[in-house]
Amino acid sequence: MIKTHGYAAQSATSAPAPFDFERRDPGSNDVHIAIDFCGICHSDIHQARNEWKSSIYPMVPGHEIVGTVKQIGSAVTKFKVGDRAAVGCLIDSCRNCDSCNAGEEQYCENGATIWTYNSKDKKGNINFGGYSDSIVTDERFVLKMPLNLDPAAAAPLLCAGITTYSPLKHWNAGPGKKVGIIGLGGLGHMGLKFSHALGAHTVQFTTSASKIESAKKLGADEVILTRESNWHVPHAGTFDFILDCVSAKHDLTPYLALLKRDSTLCTVGLPEEPLAIPAFSVGLARKSFAGSSVGGLKETQEMLDFCGKHNIVADIEMTSFAKLDEAWDRVLTADVKYRFVLDLKTLNNK
Amino acid sequence: MIKTHGYAAQSATSAPAPFDFERRDPGSNDVHIAIDFCGICHSDIHQARNEWKSSIYPMVPGHEIVGTVKQIGSAVTKFKVGDRAAVGCLIDSCRNCDSCNAGEEQYCENGATIWTYNSKDKKGNINFGGYSDSIVTDERFVLKMPLNLDPAAAAPLLCAGITTYSPLKHWNAGPGKKVGIIGLGGLGHMGLKFSHALGAHTVQFTTSASKIESAKKLGADEVILTRESNWHVPHAGTFDFILDCVSAKHDLTPYLALLKRDSTLCTVGLPEEPLAIPAFSVGLARKSFAGSSVGGLKETQEMLDFCGKHNIVADIEMTSFAKLDEAWDRVLTADVKYRFVLDLKTLNNK
Repeated sequence: MIKTHGYAAQSATSAPAPFDFERRDPGSNDVHIAIDFCGICHSDIHQARNEWKSSIYPMVPGHEIVGTVKQIGSAVTKFKVGDRAAVGCLIDSCRNCDSCNAGEEQYCENGATIWTYNSKDKKGNINFGGYSDSIVTDERFVLKMPLNLDPAAAAPLLCAGITTYSPLKHWNAGPGKKVGIIGLGGLGHMGLKFSHALGAHTVQFTTSASKIESAKKLGADEVILTRESNWHVPHAGTFDFILDCVSAKHDLTPYLALLKRDSTLCTVGLPEEPLAIPAFSVGLARKSFAGSSVGGLKETQEMLDFCGKHNIVADIEMTSFAKLDEAWDRVLTADVKYRFVLDLKTLNNK
Repeated sequence: MIKTHGYAAQSATSAPAPFDFERRDPGSNDVHIAIDFCGICHSDIHQARNEWKSSIYPMVPGHEIVGTVKQIGSAVTKFKVGDRAAVGCLIDSCRNCDSCNAGEEQYCENGATIWTYNSKDKKGNINFGGYSDSIVTDERFVLKMPLNLDPAAAAPLLCAGITTYSPLKHWNAGPGKKVGIIGLGGLGHMGLKFSHALGAHTVQFTTSASKIESAKKLGADEVILTRESNWHVPHAGTFDFILDCVSAKHDLTPYLALLKRDSTLCTVGLPEEPLAIPAFSVGLARKSFAGSSVGGLKETQEMLDFCGKHNIVADIEMTSFAKLDEAWDRVLTADVKYRFVLDLKTLNNK
C-alpha cells in the first residue's frame, strides 16, 4: 500500500484538515501519479458540506488533477514513468453499456460511473481525490497532458474545461454560429475561451459593466449587459446556442427568448433549486432547455489536445493548503479570476 | 362583403353569444369555405377568457375548421368549388423568413404568424375563427382533407392532430423507438394514435387505472400507472421521447428520469405556470426539456395525408351551439372523450 497525505473533510461541518491514508499498490492496468497541482472546483465545497445530500466521509476532494507518473502496472501501455498525466472527474464505470462504449462514461447507463472522490470503488472502498500527494488510477481513466501547457493552469481543464467544451461541441459551436455564455467565473471563462477558439461568434452576458474588458480579452466578440429590463429584446431569436454557467437560481425566460427556432440553452451550473421554465418560452419556436455533465474520457483527451494546439489554459490564482479555507470562501463569493489551483508542494503533513 | 353568422365572446367575462359580421370578398388567392364542423379546443376557452393576457374582442373562436369550398379567387389552383377543405391554427405569416421558407410558418421569425382568431390581419382587421358559418382564407393556408375521413371527426386534426404529430415526427418517433405520452385528453389521445401509427412502442402514462383499457384501444402498447411514489424507477433511462400533453402544472422530474441519454421530453400542453426543472434531472444524461407549437402548412398537409392513409381521426362527441357553455365547462373538467366538435348546422342566428 502507498502511504498518502492529503486534506479531508470529516463531516459536513468540519473544514478540510490534514489526513493520512493509503492508496492501493498499482495493479497491472494502474498508473501511480505523484500529484503536482489540483484545481479547486465549486463542487468540492458543495460535496464537502453535503449540499447535494450524498456525501461520504472522510472526503478528500479534488478532481482537477495534474501530476507526474511515478510507477506503472505491467499492462500499462499509454504511460511511462516521468510522463505528465492527469485525472479528471471520473475514474471508473461499468465499461460495458452503450454510453461507456460510446466513450460517454459519465453517462454510464448502469449508474456505475465512479467519480474521483465522494464515491466508492467496485470493492466498496472510499475513493479519495486530488487534495493529496498521489493517486492510483486505471490507465483507461488517465489522460495525457500536452507538455506545452503550464501544468498548474491546465489543472482546471479537467473539470471546468471539459464541462464547457463538451456541450459546445455537442451543440455544434463553430464558424457561422452565434453562441452566448452566461456567467463569467470558473466555468464561464473556459466556455468563452472554447467558443472563441472553436470559431463561433461569442457573446458574453454579464450584469456588470466592469467585466466587459475582461470578457473581451478572454475571447468575447460582443458583451451584452443584462441589467436593464427588456435588455434581451433587441437580440431576440438570434442565438444558435447558449451555455449557462451560473450556479445560482436565475430567470431563464429572457435568455430563452434569445434563441433561434430549434436551438438549445444548456445549463452546466447545476443550481440546487429547480429552474422555472415557462412552457411558452420553449414552445413558441421549438426550443430546448438541456443539461450536460462533464465529458467522457475520449472527449476529455480531445479537449486537452485541442488546448495543446490552441494554447488554452485556465486563468488561475495559485493557492496553498494553509489558505484553503480562505480560497473556498472566495470561491463562494466569486472572488477569484477565475479558478484556484492548489500547489501540492504546500502540503505540510508529509 | 360576405354576411357571416357566428358566436363571439364580447369580453373576458361574457360567454360566447350569437354575432353577425362580414368576411371580405375573396381576393384572387382566396378560398371561401362554408364551414361544416369546428372542433372545440381548450385554447378557445383560455383566449375567450383572456387567460393568456392577449385577447382581442369581439372574439369568434375556433381553429379546427372543416368545410366545403363555396367560391374561389381567380388565381386559386389547389381548390375548386365543392371540394372539402380545412383551416387550422394559422392563416398568414411574413412568408419570407427562414422559418416561413422552411414551411414552419408557425415559427415566423418576424413574429408575423397570423393566428386564425384572436389576431389581426395585415390591414389591422380582427380575424374571426370557425365558430361561424364561413371563412375566407388565402389558399396557401388552406388544407386538403382526405375524403375517406369523417369530416366532423377530422376537424380536431387541425389543432390537436398537428400539435402532437409535429413533435413526434421532429423527434423521430418510429420503429425501434420507445415513446411515452403524458395525459389522455384531446391532445394525448391523438399523440397515442400517431405514435402507434408511426410504429413506435407507445406507452401511456396515467394516474387512473380506469383508463388502461381505453389507452390500449387507442394504440398504447403499454400503460404505466403513475400514482405510487417511485413508480418511475423500474422504467428509468428507457424512453427515446416523451410527449407531455398535460395543460396543468405538474412534476416533470420522474418523467425526465425515464429518458435515455440525449433524449427529449416535449411539452405541448402549455400550462400557464412555469414548469420546475431541476438542473440535475437534465444534466446527468444530457437530456432536454423542449416545447413545440402546432405545425406549419406543409407538415399539416402531410399529417392529414398520413391520417387519410392510416384512417386516423379524433374520437369526438358532437355538440351544438345551444350546448356550447356546457361543452366548455366539460372541457375544463376533462369530461369528454376526447374532443367536442360543433356542427355548424346547429347555428341558429342565420
